Amino acid sequence: MTMAPELPTAAIVTDPDIKAGYAVDSSLGAHCDGDFTLVRARDLDDVVTVLRHAQATRTPVVPQGARTGLAGGSVAIPGGIVLNLEGLDTVTEIDPIEGIAVCGPGTINADLKAAAAQQGLWYAPDPASSGSCTIGGNVATNAGGLCCVKYGVTADHIRGLQVVLASGEVITTGRRTSKGVAGLDLTGLFVGSEGTLGVVTEVVARLIPRPEPPLTALAIFDSMAALTRAIVALRLEPHRPSLIEVLDSPTMAAIQALGDYGYPAEATAVLLVQSDRAGHATEDIARYAQVLEAAGASDLATADDPQEAELLMGGRRMLNPGLEAKGPRFLEDICVPIVRLGDLIEAAHRVGAAHGIEVTTSGHGGDGNLHPSFFFDPEVPGGPGSRAAAEAAFGELVTIALAMGGTISGEHGIGTLKARWLEQEVGAASLQRQRDLKHLFDPTEILNPGRVYWS
Amino acid sequence: MTMAPELPTAAIVTDPDIKAGYAVDSSLGAHCDGDFTLVRARDLDDVVTVLRHAQATRTPVVPQGARTGLAGGSVAIPGGIVLNLEGLDTVTEIDPIEGIAVCGPGTINADLKAAAAQQGLWYAPDPASSGSCTIGGNVATNAGGLCCVKYGVTADHIRGLQVVLASGEVITTGRRTSKGVAGLDLTGLFVGSEGTLGVVTEVVARLIPRPEPPLTALAIFDSMAALTRAIVALRLEPHRPSLIEVLDSPTMAAIQALGDYGYPAEATAVLLVQSDRAGHATEDIARYAQVLEAAGASDLATADDPQEAELLMGGRRMLNPGLEAKGPRFLEDICVPIVRLGDLIEAAHRVGAAHGIEVTTSGHGGDGNLHPSFFFDPEVPGGPGSRAAAEAAFGELVTIALAMGGTISGEHGIGTLKARWLEQEVGAASLQRQRDLKHLFDPTEILNPGRVYWS
Repeated sequence: MTMAPELPTAAIVTDPDIKAGYAVDSSLGAHCDGDFTLVRARDLDDVVTVLRHAQATRTPVVPQGARTGLAGGSVAIPGGIVLNLEGLDTVTEIDPIEGIAVCGPGTINADLKAAAAQQGLWYAPDPASSGSCTIGGNVATNAGGLCCVKYGVTADHIRGLQVVLASGEVITTGRRTSKGVAGLDLTGLFVGSEGTLGVVTEVVARLIPRPEPPLTALAIFDSMAALTRAIVALRLEPHRPSLIEVLDSPTMAAIQALGDYGYPAEATAVLLVQSDRAGHATEDIARYAQVLEAAGASDLATADDPQEAELLMGGRRMLNPGLEAKGPRFLEDICVPIVRLGDLIEAAHRVGAAHGIEVTTSGHGGDGNLHPSFFFDPEVPGGPGSRAAAEAAFGELVTIALAMGGTISGEHGIGTLKARWLEQEVGAASLQRQRDLKHLFDPTEILNPGRVYWS
Repeated sequence: MTMAPELPTAAIVTDPDIKAGYAVDSSLGAHCDGDFTLVRARDLDDVVTVLRHAQATRTPVVPQGARTGLAGGSVAIPGGIVLNLEGLDTVTEIDPIEGIAVCGPGTINADLKAAAAQQGLWYAPDPASSGSCTIGGNVATNAGGLCCVKYGVTADHIRGLQVVLASGEVITTGRRTSKGVAGLDLTGLFVGSEGTLGVVTEVVARLIPRPEPPLTALAIFDSMAALTRAIVALRLEPHRPSLIEVLDSPTMAAIQALGDYGYPAEATAVLLVQSDRAGHATEDIARYAQVLEAAGASDLATADDPQEAELLMGGRRMLNPGLEAKGPRFLEDICVPIVRLGDLIEAAHRVGAAHGIEVTTSGHGGDGNLHPSFFFDPEVPGGPGSRAAAEAAFGELVTIALAMGGTISGEHGIGTLKARWLEQEVGAASLQRQRDLKHLFDPTEILNPGRVYWS
């Protein structure tokens, strides 16, 4: 047995006030009941050293980026090491011919987009936290966003990785070339593995030509049936919208509480639809308006130019501030077959009502990926309106989504919050294989232990 | 120890003439030096029974589709079982709202396309063998084709799988919904695993709206430098062509030997470029023509309508017959950075000349994925022009492609033909993890043993 290598002293942060900010991610109730070691990696060597040390000392390591995660996957573990990768934030290369960018995992999503934009290119994935989340975190959770309905998720835009394994070994996965089928797709295995299989230290991302600024249609619906009809009809259009977002009535009210964004108080839902199709956006929006009307929209607005299009998105941009203002909540991330969308929103309302819980539902309607929020009053000790009631509602809706043929997580990940439903979704045999894979890559269980695969 | 279950007698084929056709795939020199058991699976149960039998008796199993593979990955193993999946060829569902098809692994690629087309949808991946290859084989090799430059490869179009593991256990991977991040991406792990990790018994494929019939530009080049300039310039266009195919001078000659397709004898290369962009194909082709001319094309033809566009593709359609007529060959499938495309074609010519070997090079120029062919005379016992010389040239070009930052296989797979270079590409640490994964899923090494990971 060799001596454990020392942690890189210069990368360790000991200030308790600073450390407090690195103890949790952005999930509800995240907390760390004890001290931990915070290492803010400066380079690949730091990552290798931390993992070798952790391996030798059997210390849990939590890989971490900007702590915008919503599933509890990067919360510190008492006695463990938080290995923060924010510092590895360099975009080292943009190759417009191959259509790739090479960057560190700490690169902010919006910074990668900006670097690509300088060459007329686009890194498509756009989580709501684009301005603050890191590419490494996006890779860890296989993050989604608003663009997915047309452009897909993070996994669709990653060609290769550099990964430090639990052993401290450094491997590269995937490729830089357009195509390549040499060996198993380890890249795809690491994308979405939530820091449980290795620590990503470099990302080769796919870039595509930057689309034109989108135009927008906004439609008001007075029934869930009409809303679902509209989304289904949009899915059947030959030219897929670049955005299909839905806000239910309580969500609209939460946004209207911050200012008048033109959402009528009596409406059931608002649907936002965009086209960014070069040279055809005006024509698409006119077509979508017809489709929305035929599906039963009670009111419609369309934008002829990008400025107006952005104005129609104004209310949607206030979604998170509006919901934040309402207080603490359990936030869902389920994805169901599109035909069940209206049913799911109604189920969220029903479940919330049964527990005396205020519910808002919004999300990526075109994907069937919704984010119901179950609000509670932390002062209420139990019963209707309490935290326990909201948590119960949250759990019931997961079960309902599964029964509809849906998934327990569309884009946030499993982390700790959804781990107890993973087996129900993937089945015992598949979960066993996932645990086997985890064991293969991390036999001493130092990487984000106890998460994802264990409830 | 339980008794080995009997093989499904009614599914076994014993006629030696029929069996001979199932002994090999379409790779050069494929042969099986001994007898094997041929099972043509009729359903999931047959697959489970075969694997349980094989597991209990430690018998090698070669999963197999239409034997169009080019890397030797589905050739029978003496004493083993060929588990042919052609019979599982039902398209059980097309869901236009979710944009998915569910089908058996034996479904012919073109049949899936046809079933999707009935609903205005498209299954994009289009290997050259589309009319005869199976979806299961496409999944096994992560097959590419001509559409990849715009639409990506098979992996980009698979949402989920049903897989029978070596143990006989049946698992489902992935999902039917648009998004989903619950657990590790086992789907991606099985795609491209060449029958070494499990046997795919059902595929959930992604469908997209069917594009319009493409228009075509054909450009003649008198130098590799100009050809490469043209492809690089096309890659930088905001609207990616739906096809960028290249044929070198000896390839043109092989095609012209079958009829006059208008290829000038003195030219260095011909480049075919298409656009299928709805409402913009004419405009795109005019723009591509400018780009091709600016890059130094010595002659140009463009098509104003789909019929004419297809005529310009006439010579390209004769590519395989033209090359087949030239006799036996080692067929490459390397992919290099696009800027090295001309260098690679010249290297192929140089390597061939050094070994006294005729070389043709054609392929998916827009991806940097080329298929040089090294022809030989089986009557020549050794030295220039012999099989050994062609094989040496084949190997040298692989090494050259790797040195250019390329991959040893863009779309055909590793199988047996490329296994000896896998470590050189992915590195020892990554290869070890791949072998570990193989061992995890197939501890007794019954699934396609000795392939991909072992040279």
